[in-house]
Amino acid sequence: MSRIAYVDGRYVPHADAAVHVEDRGYQFADGVYEVIGVHRGRLFDAEPHLDRLDRSLDELRIAAPMGRRAMRVVLAEMLRRNRITGAGAVYLQVTRGVAPRAHAFPARARPVLVMTARSMPPFDPKAARRGVAVVTMPDIRWGRCDIKSVSLLANVLGKQSAIEAGAFDAWMVDDTRTITEGTASNAWIVTRKGELITRQPDHAILNGITRRAVLALAAELGIKLVERPFTVAQAKKATEAFLTSTTSMVKPVVRIDGTKIGSGRIGPLTARLVEFYARHLDDEADAQAPDHRP
Amino acid sequence: MSRIAYVDGRYVPHADAAVHVEDRGYQFADGVYEVIGVHRGRLFDAEPHLDRLDRSLDELRIAAPMGRRAMRVVLAEMLRRNRITGAGAVYLQVTRGVAPRAHAFPARARPVLVMTARSMPPFDPKAARRGVAVVTMPDIRWGRCDIKSVSLLANVLGKQSAIEAGAFDAWMVDDTRTITEGTASNAWIVTRKGELITRQPDHAILNGITRRAVLALAAELGIKLVERPFTVAQAKKATEAFLTSTTSMVKPVVRIDGTKIGSGRIGPLTARLVEFYARHLDDEADAQAPDHRP
Repeated sequence: MSRIAYVDGRYVPHADAAVHVEDRGYQFADGVYEVIGVHRGRLFDAEPHLDRLDRSLDELRIAAPMGRRAMRVVLAEMLRRNRITGAGAVYLQVTRGVAPRAHAFPARARPVLVMTARSMPPFDPKAARRGVAVVTMPDIRWGRCDIKSVSLLANVLGKQSAIEAGAFDAWMVDDTRTITEGTASNAWIVTRKGELITRQPDHAILNGITRRAVLALAAELGIKLVERPFTVAQAKKATEAFLTSTTSMVKPVVRIDGTKIGSGRIGPLTARLVEFYARHLDDEADAQAPDHRP
Repeated sequence: MSRIAYVDGRYVPHADAAVHVEDRGYQFADGVYEVIGVHRGRLFDAEPHLDRLDRSLDELRIAAPMGRRAMRVVLAEMLRRNRITGAGAVYLQVTRGVAPRAHAFPARARPVLVMTARSMPPFDPKAARRGVAVVTMPDIRWGRCDIKSVSLLANVLGKQSAIEAGAFDAWMVDDTRTITEGTASNAWIVTRKGELITRQPDHAILNGITRRAVLALAAELGIKLVERPFTVAQAKKATEAFLTSTTSMVKPVVRIDGTKIGSGRIGPLTARLVEFYARHLDDEADAQAPDHRP
């Protein structure tokens, strides 16, 4: 079955999904994006993703390409046309539009919305418990990482370095030796006192949708939560560590720069969050099922 | 006459010049670019631009899309097909290529080369002497501005803010209060002692081709040159200031954050550089003329 993309008002075969070379996304990274997960054929946490998209657009003063209702229709249509009935993801990008090349905002550009969708392997609870390694490296990204822009070259280089170092991801470190976040995920540790720590949402990190869902779950579970920066040294002394993102969900981190974290396997608090996050996905899917009666 | 673009091996009408939505330039700003000026129908300083392109590609480990000789053929063909016989510019961009979206370098992507070309108003010596205003603002760009990447969102926002403040450009300021550069140009001042100062090429600035040409001209003219960072306060006390770029060439800066620089008009040293830079362009064009006998 051939994949279908959505490009600026039209559904087209994925192979033909193209944008003009003077689209400002291509020449200036002047655009934003979201990745929305699909579980049992249903989008999860779509509304917070669309809220964040609106925030990113506002920060860059790019007009919304369409209203929220129309956006939901296109998202649903992408799932249908791509026959995504299990797990998957929808990628959506909005750029400032096409205009003759000049740095300043063009007077007349019209925002361009592009979407692609794909199926992914279903959630595997056993695989979810498997830990990964991360390495730390200097955070050389720009000063507005709270905007989910496609200005991702530093993230690309960080992820590539991590992979070449045999790790799953890089945790990036600012000038004060505190960890900001991963190249495409938020970073978390659990201290010896049982405190769950993740950086507060400032300009140095993206306020992840999975991050927020996990904060809410942790609060429900009565876990002691602190949103503050933590150092590389603190991370290496943590009893547990994990990362969160839409596609990684809650993933145990068992090595940081080669230092074993806790037992070197998923810790008890992380295990609970993995389990509860999986339930959150099921709840989200159930709530959208046609036969759902609240 | 319709404009022609070059896209990944083909010459196409400008309106049809498109790249795939999964081109990494579009989704990750994973690409680099150059703008080469045209004077009297001839490219100027093409070789240093192509050398810098190679350096940017090397830094990102993107393979060259073609050899230098083939690149020169495409550049010449772009001038010919777009009938650029006077002033103009060729924009060229190389991205890591098209691949299913994932941050790390794809195993099999092939670099994509895109070029556009346009005519511009001819060099006007009178207009060249006219001064512009700049404003200063925090430099929030990433840590590798020496790579000429399309990760330009911070530059876009800076330029836009400058224009809204009634200025021509923004001079960006790092944590130590020194000016790095403009959003698309290098920054220069002349001190009361008659020293010409511009920042040394480090990771915070792009080593401009016009910057290098002006350094060479200044050396020829016996001007006392210092490559070092300078502060906003030093810039405001300068007797002259100017900016350089391929399209702005040598442009007098007569106001910084509203503070008048020198007399508020082009200074004597800047005037000499404007004049000599114009001669440099003529020399470059002459050297490439078919009837040129050295």
